Amino acid sequence: MGQPQPGKQTPLVTRQPGQPDTLVEVGPVTFGGSRVVLIGGPCAVESQSQMCAAAEVVAAAGGTLLRGGAWKPRTNPYDFQGLGREGLAHLAAARRATGLPFVTEVLDPRDVEVVAQVADMLQIGSRSVQNFPLLREAGASGKPVLLKRGMMTTVDEWLSAAEYVLAAGNENVVFCERGIRTFEPALRNTLDVGSVAVLKEKTHLPVIVDPSHAAGDVRYVTALARAAVAAGADGLLVETHCDPEAALSDAAQSLTPDQFKELAASCGAVARAIGRDL
Amino acid sequence: MGQPQPGKQTPLVTRQPGQPDTLVEVGPVTFGGSRVVLIGGPCAVESQSQMCAAAEVVAAAGGTLLRGGAWKPRTNPYDFQGLGREGLAHLAAARRATGLPFVTEVLDPRDVEVVAQVADMLQIGSRSVQNFPLLREAGASGKPVLLKRGMMTTVDEWLSAAEYVLAAGNENVVFCERGIRTFEPALRNTLDVGSVAVLKEKTHLPVIVDPSHAAGDVRYVTALARAAVAAGADGLLVETHCDPEAALSDAAQSLTPDQFKELAASCGAVARAIGRDL
Amino acid sequence: MGQPQPGKQTPLVTRQPGQPDTLVEVGPVTFGGSRVVLIGGPCAVESQSQMCAAAEVVAAAGGTLLRGGAWKPRTNPYDFQGLGREGLAHLAAARRATGLPFVTEVLDPRDVEVVAQVADMLQIGSRSVQNFPLLREAGASGKPVLLKRGMMTTVDEWLSAAEYVLAAGNENVVFCERGIRTFEPALRNTLDVGSVAVLKEKTHLPVIVDPSHAAGDVRYVTALARAAVAAGADGLLVETHCDPEAALSDAAQSLTPDQFKELAASCGAVARAIGRDL
Amino acid sequence: MGQPQPGKQTPLVTRQPGQPDTLVEVGPVTFGGSRVVLIGGPCAVESQSQMCAAAEVVAAAGGTLLRGGAWKPRTNPYDFQGLGREGLAHLAAARRATGLPFVTEVLDPRDVEVVAQVADMLQIGSRSVQNFPLLREAGASGKPVLLKRGMMTTVDEWLSAAEYVLAAGNENVVFCERGIRTFEPALRNTLDVGSVAVLKEKTHLPVIVDPSHAAGDVRYVTALARAAVAAGADGLLVETHCDPEAALSDAAQSLTPDQFKELAASCGAVARAIGRDL
Repeated sequence: MGQPQPGKQTPLVTRQPGQPDTLVEVGPVTFGGSRVVLIGGPCAVESQSQMCAAAEVVAAAGGTLLRGGAWKPRTNPYDFQGLGREGLAHLAAARRATGLPFVTEVLDPRDVEVVAQVADMLQIGSRSVQNFPLLREAGASGKPVLLKRGMMTTVDEWLSAAEYVLAAGNENVVFCERGIRTFEPALRNTLDVGSVAVLKEKTHLPVIVDPSHAAGDVRYVTALARAAVAAGADGLLVETHCDPEAALSDAAQSLTPDQFKELAASCGAVARAIGRDL
Repeated sequence: MGQPQPGKQTPLVTRQPGQPDTLVEVGPVTFGGSRVVLIGGPCAVESQSQMCAAAEVVAAAGGTLLRGGAWKPRTNPYDFQGLGREGLAHLAAARRATGLPFVTEVLDPRDVEVVAQVADMLQIGSRSVQNFPLLREAGASGKPVLLKRGMMTTVDEWLSAAEYVLAAGNENVVFCERGIRTFEPALRNTLDVGSVAVLKEKTHLPVIVDPSHAAGDVRYVTALARAAVAAGADGLLVETHCDPEAALSDAAQSLTPDQFKELAASCGAVARAIGRDL
Repeated sequence: MGQPQPGKQTPLVTRQPGQPDTLVEVGPVTFGGSRVVLIGGPCAVESQSQMCAAAEVVAAAGGTLLRGGAWKPRTNPYDFQGLGREGLAHLAAARRATGLPFVTEVLDPRDVEVVAQVADMLQIGSRSVQNFPLLREAGASGKPVLLKRGMMTTVDEWLSAAEYVLAAGNENVVFCERGIRTFEPALRNTLDVGSVAVLKEKTHLPVIVDPSHAAGDVRYVTALARAAVAAGADGLLVETHCDPEAALSDAAQSLTPDQFKELAASCGAVARAIGRDL
Repeated sequence: MGQPQPGKQTPLVTRQPGQPDTLVEVGPVTFGGSRVVLIGGPCAVESQSQMCAAAEVVAAAGGTLLRGGAWKPRTNPYDFQGLGREGLAHLAAARRATGLPFVTEVLDPRDVEVVAQVADMLQIGSRSVQNFPLLREAGASGKPVLLKRGMMTTVDEWLSAAEYVLAAGNENVVFCERGIRTFEPALRNTLDVGSVAVLKEKTHLPVIVDPSHAAGDVRYVTALARAAVAAGADGLLVETHCDPEAALSDAAQSLTPDQFKELAASCGAVARAIGRDL
């Protein structure tokens, strides 16, 4: 199993000479245009009221897409694994209440059909970036796919993973950098902000950044989000929770509603400084 | 999603005070006893004659278990993906011819049942170590599981992955160290031989080593295999092919039959030096 | 030799509760204030005319400090090792011509005195960040010190390295993030933009970023520079050469004069978006 | 500063076609022959009685070379930095008492002359592997040099560092693998046992292993030492202290005299299994 040589090996994902950016549309939201897309919401879906409240916070801050995990990939088998189908229903309720489309993770190829019937966008999580059966099913579903980078996935392997989705007939892929695993323990992961610049050159597809999982700590999320926008990211995926201390997972990295609003304002200013908007 | 704290978080996998080694049996083969188990065979199953020839090489050198991939996890969607069910049949034919049981990788939770009906042991590959639906299905199958370490997996995350299998009622798990991803490009991966010693203390389950994927280069496979045995590994998983240059994958790291025999002899001497056998 | 526990172990470097940012002054230039400092110049000093031309480019673009290596730390003993004292004279000539102070690397504790007599600021390079005799001499010199991060130095080790300088009576230390070594080969190093945010909280001293060594490729330098400013960096250290293709080292990452001007303009816009200037 | 291409770039260090192993002699001890060299002693020299007692333990177990640090490279400026010249005198006393030659670290190019007058072999430590002025001085001293790998050094960079010593006219270099920095926190460093096999092919110079710093934990030192011998290492550098709990540094990884004897016996058996001795 030799090293991939993308370009030749990823003909659908690689930007051909002169090829313009591909726009990926999720309902009324466009990834890859001049506007930086802000996605917000909790790590895990916990209840309908929680999701509806979070959705209102996201919308009020200028966010246009909602996130929330119905199935959670947990390192440990005894941790909370998500509400499953019930979580999907809560996400749909929040969509009805606010008009925001939503993205949610799918872990198991057998769940793709069920999730695709309800969700506006499928998330393939970090641990699944080389889950090839899952990538094929996500491709076959035709739904837009948010493809997170693995903690130790090279840019070339990541491009090859996306090629699985496109080879199944689905060109609606958005890459999401979320930090890589390195020797440095100061933050949860090391945000590889350079990968945004590299991907924008290597592929025609949009690239966004998840500063919450990279930082793992509320104090650093906004600085990483600003850096991502300055480096050319087409969007941000940010965890926010109306009551972070009560969150069932990722409490330490979830912004309060006020912090989320400040992040949106601060990143909007950076976006405008480089000729974009948020 | 906090860091796992194995011991408390992996009650079934963690060695309790005074708990002896667990023996995992695969047909007539025992992992975890005084004899170091030698597993051999090609990376990918290509044909019945190839598998039968390889099986004879393995048996002649003292190997007691056969390996071969029917489904191959490939970084690139356009590379050879394995023969699937036909590959299983070739493995079964080689087993009939030599009496050697076989281990083969399963990638998709939907394939576990089919593979478990034929194979003697299920391999969960590096890219699947945190594929939780797959781990649960492998656990439910009741078949012995060979759990490879991911390129990016810490020892603690690896223990937690095994806990998914045991929590599903299946205690027959064998860990397989196969090199981790580091900054060093000299070899394909960096064999973390220390993880063998750490696992032998942290868990009661057997631990083996795959020197072929760690090295990625025939010249270094035997040195790594000897180091693994010296560090306390309960077995070796080694790629061998009767005609490496014609192999459909992993040609550079597949030993010829003669090299495989030399490896077996050399590792046998090291095993005896530390009071074991091979 | 246990792990450092900065805070207690680095009493001079750690920001005490309520302690304001320390300003480090190098001639008329102030690090740590509202203005982001732009440092420019070639990797290696090659001639007096080269340095004078580079200095004019830097000044014209709004840069306020000049860089250039007189002693070069080279991985290979047969590569160009720098002009030594002659290089210092060229840097001084460029300073006279433009009024820009300069920073240059010192590699050997025996050279600190000579360099400190001429240079405005001493650079401790990545490979020297744990060269303790050199850190002590740099501290004793009383000159401002630009302390680059090592390719595999944790933030805590870096803080401890700075403590050596401060413990020698010299509080004028500026940290410089320049990318760390990871598994990802797409760029020369992985810019750890999060370390800027972490350091701004852990220490009262200024923090700048070198996007040139992180990227190793002209195409990505400006994106990384903008990300650094957005994350809160107090300055940028950028390689520029009037004729990059003729450069004796680091040709691939040296900006042309026009590219340098564009970087300055682009980073200035980002700086103003977050309430600073450049 | 491009990537080194050893072979062409390291003509003195690279093994030429057919070139036999170079033997490096330190008094009566030979590195690179059939006998695996066992070096023992404490991390830091603390007193004359401590060194003499340690030397007797080393000699009794079959060790033939003594180690002990007179100058200690410490991450933190306030930690014990070694006894300096007084430490050298204690090492010399232990040599007189037992006949064992000794190796000790030199950190500062200004100390090379003093150390070379007394020591039998100079150690260049991990943090100094790319301290080029120090490498040149060690080369000029003519003394045998033990060159440790840096925590972040690739094999190719390590070969280039040795080339500095040989280029200064000194061919007596012994490489020492001591673990590299990776994402895995289970042990202090990750022993890269594959680097032993790679170096034995790439260079004609001897290669030894320091399992103590790699493990950082007494429980794993012997397993790593055995793995190193099995992989082809020409020697072992092991920390032992007559009273580990009272050691001024590295207490957790120092073997007791009994543990050191067991390590020697166990590694001797492995050495004989591969046709060597210890």
